[in-house]
Amino acid sequence: MGDVPVKRTSRDIRTANRYEVLRQIIAHSPTSRQELAAATGLSLATVATLVGELLDLGMLTEVGFEDSAGGRPRGLVAVNASGGALIGVDIAETYVRVELFDLALDMLARADEDMRPGENRPEQVVAHVAAAVGSVVTQAGVEGARVLGVGVSVPGQVDRDRGVSEYAPNWDWHDVPLLDLLSEHIAYPLYLDNPLRACAVAELWFGAARGRGDAVVVNLGTGVGAGLALGGGLHRGVSNSAGEWGHTTLVLDGRLCHCGNHGCVETYVGAPGIMLNLRELSPSSPLLHPEDQTATIDALARGVAAQDPVALTVVRDTARYLGAGISNLVNVFNPEVVVLSSWVAATLGDPLLNEVREAVARHALKRPFAATEIVLSPIPTDPVCLGAATFALEGALQSVSQRGASVSRPRARAGPKG
Amino acid sequence: MGDVPVKRTSRDIRTANRYEVLRQIIAHSPTSRQELAAATGLSLATVATLVGELLDLGMLTEVGFEDSAGGRPRGLVAVNASGGALIGVDIAETYVRVELFDLALDMLARADEDMRPGENRPEQVVAHVAAAVGSVVTQAGVEGARVLGVGVSVPGQVDRDRGVSEYAPNWDWHDVPLLDLLSEHIAYPLYLDNPLRACAVAELWFGAARGRGDAVVVNLGTGVGAGLALGGGLHRGVSNSAGEWGHTTLVLDGRLCHCGNHGCVETYVGAPGIMLNLRELSPSSPLLHPEDQTATIDALARGVAAQDPVALTVVRDTARYLGAGISNLVNVFNPEVVVLSSWVAATLGDPLLNEVREAVARHALKRPFAATEIVLSPIPTDPVCLGAATFALEGALQSVSQRGASVSRPRARAGPKG
Repeated sequence: MGDVPVKRTSRDIRTANRYEVLRQIIAHSPTSRQELAAATGLSLATVATLVGELLDLGMLTEVGFEDSAGGRPRGLVAVNASGGALIGVDIAETYVRVELFDLALDMLARADEDMRPGENRPEQVVAHVAAAVGSVVTQAGVEGARVLGVGVSVPGQVDRDRGVSEYAPNWDWHDVPLLDLLSEHIAYPLYLDNPLRACAVAELWFGAARGRGDAVVVNLGTGVGAGLALGGGLHRGVSNSAGEWGHTTLVLDGRLCHCGNHGCVETYVGAPGIMLNLRELSPSSPLLHPEDQTATIDALARGVAAQDPVALTVVRDTARYLGAGISNLVNVFNPEVVVLSSWVAATLGDPLLNEVREAVARHALKRPFAATEIVLSPIPTDPVCLGAATFALEGALQSVSQRGASVSRPRARAGPKG
Repeated sequence: MGDVPVKRTSRDIRTANRYEVLRQIIAHSPTSRQELAAATGLSLATVATLVGELLDLGMLTEVGFEDSAGGRPRGLVAVNASGGALIGVDIAETYVRVELFDLALDMLARADEDMRPGENRPEQVVAHVAAAVGSVVTQAGVEGARVLGVGVSVPGQVDRDRGVSEYAPNWDWHDVPLLDLLSEHIAYPLYLDNPLRACAVAELWFGAARGRGDAVVVNLGTGVGAGLALGGGLHRGVSNSAGEWGHTTLVLDGRLCHCGNHGCVETYVGAPGIMLNLRELSPSSPLLHPEDQTATIDALARGVAAQDPVALTVVRDTARYLGAGISNLVNVFNPEVVVLSSWVAATLGDPLLNEVREAVARHALKRPFAATEIVLSPIPTDPVCLGAATFALEGALQSVSQRGASVSRPRARAGPKG
């Protein structure tokens, strides 16, 4: 055991550099190879090689020249937005959302499917996903052949390589072969991961973690967790389950969690935990919609805007737990930025952020706190869909290094099946 | 801000590969370039280049040939143990320990200096370090000119680049320019870091983290923390303060910590926290030596060996806190191995380890728990001294990439000053 080497291959570096160059180009099209070299710290020769590969793949396009004072005119490149399409699937506890993007990761179409409470058998979820994927392809009017891949985010622990949902605690799924089930309906290359990592990769490519050394993306939804963007890449852990901050003990012997532990962060700051905070404070509050997380969080947000004292207290209580839990992340990771992401963070917005900042200041060590910015996700659309689509983009880019200069194409037919 | 690039340079890779090759050679001398390539996953050409550099530096030596079935005889290399000396300094709350190593990191000499309670002004600590460094050089009889560097570990948060102890909570040090003070007495190149990272780098080079992808080294002493060996290197964070797990909240609104927060892990499992666990259980226990942490932990270890019920209960209580806290690390990092290091772990040994394993099994998520081994540090000597000496070795290796093939030498004179 002790001597298994940790391989650092030139291919890993090459893949990371390819991501970095494409990230820059997506953020700043059109741009020159010289600007890319300056922005990434890579040599001009390396940038030229990587740009050449991306041009060959049809992911970039040449868009003319700019003058350079006294020197030769510099060639400009831009993302070839219409060079392909990417689909991101956000399977959440209460809905399925699917979005289709062009190669600049601009969203072209969206489809939402609600799931009723209890509607959580794998076949039911797969049917919703297949219907929504069919819908976005039709809406966007893209040829199916241009879809480079579909990234799928499912809550809980996943085995990416086998495409299996190992454990989804809210549904009690165990070892569901989700990609096999989906591939009976969807003919595009499929990539599986979970919302923690989808949100983290979305921030890394397009949001508040872009260009930051170490970032923690705190995902606040029904479940909660922390996507870890360390050293410019995702930290996945040895079995791809890193980031389960929602299941760290904050209150020893506290509330019982569905994971079996007591006092987990998630039991205080996940949407059901926030509902419990509200119920404990004011059992008959009209803000409380017992069977509807979304309606309750929406009502809290409106209550805070209207200075409702119960809503203000619930947000403050929640921020106290959240602040202590985020301080733990700040002290352990010493990140440059902590990003609050997902629908609960988006709905409660700045009032939550302000309370959280004050709470973190009380709990965290002064120096790592001073080195950390705490922000709301700047991504205006569903970060899980965007991140899932980014996994499909990374998959397409990675298939280059594995198979030479040819992006993987749909296996069988041009559109979604059945 | 958002566009500062994350540079991945070929020099970083080269340095990491140089470490990896030297680690293998130290572990398995003599060895061939072919074996090194197989063990590290690097190409034979890369290994040959790195071995050549280390030979030029005098860190390796050629030691003959081995037959390879039918092929050309293979040249064997080994660490040139006498090619230089490295010194590791462990400044702890109650003592200073200094060890001198040869280049195979075998210890040649040790000096200990006790510090009385209250004896913690920087000048006092510096005087102890200088005396002990002088002592080990004299004992070992090495020429001062062969000392390649001195690694210094000091508790708390440090600025390595400036050589400053930014904050040492147990002594209330703030921004003490420790390396400047030491350099008035010690003429060798000096490298500053803290015990969390010293223990982690010792495990990475010589212990349970060697060859592991992701390891967490839990440091149990007066203070506690977690050294993070991720992807084969140390995770330091944006301001070099990552790993402050001792100051994460485990019991919201629990015991007051000297950092200002309540319920920190350290207040339950650091040596003073364990003493408090004992005092709360049995205020007049003969195991308790109120002013002496070491004596108390020693007494607990003897009590456990003798099946003393109070000692058994204290260790079980402590393991319960420790198990919940380590589960947080398992769930967040999903590491391959968790190593229990430093003097409290070494003293309480297997009885503590067994209780901790059971407690982690109760608190952690099943899948990351199943992927994680929990072990005591296999390093038989002081891991902080070994790790500090390793920082000096890394410093000497790094200076190669910065200055060409010449190891940094003492600045002024051959021995310690004063």
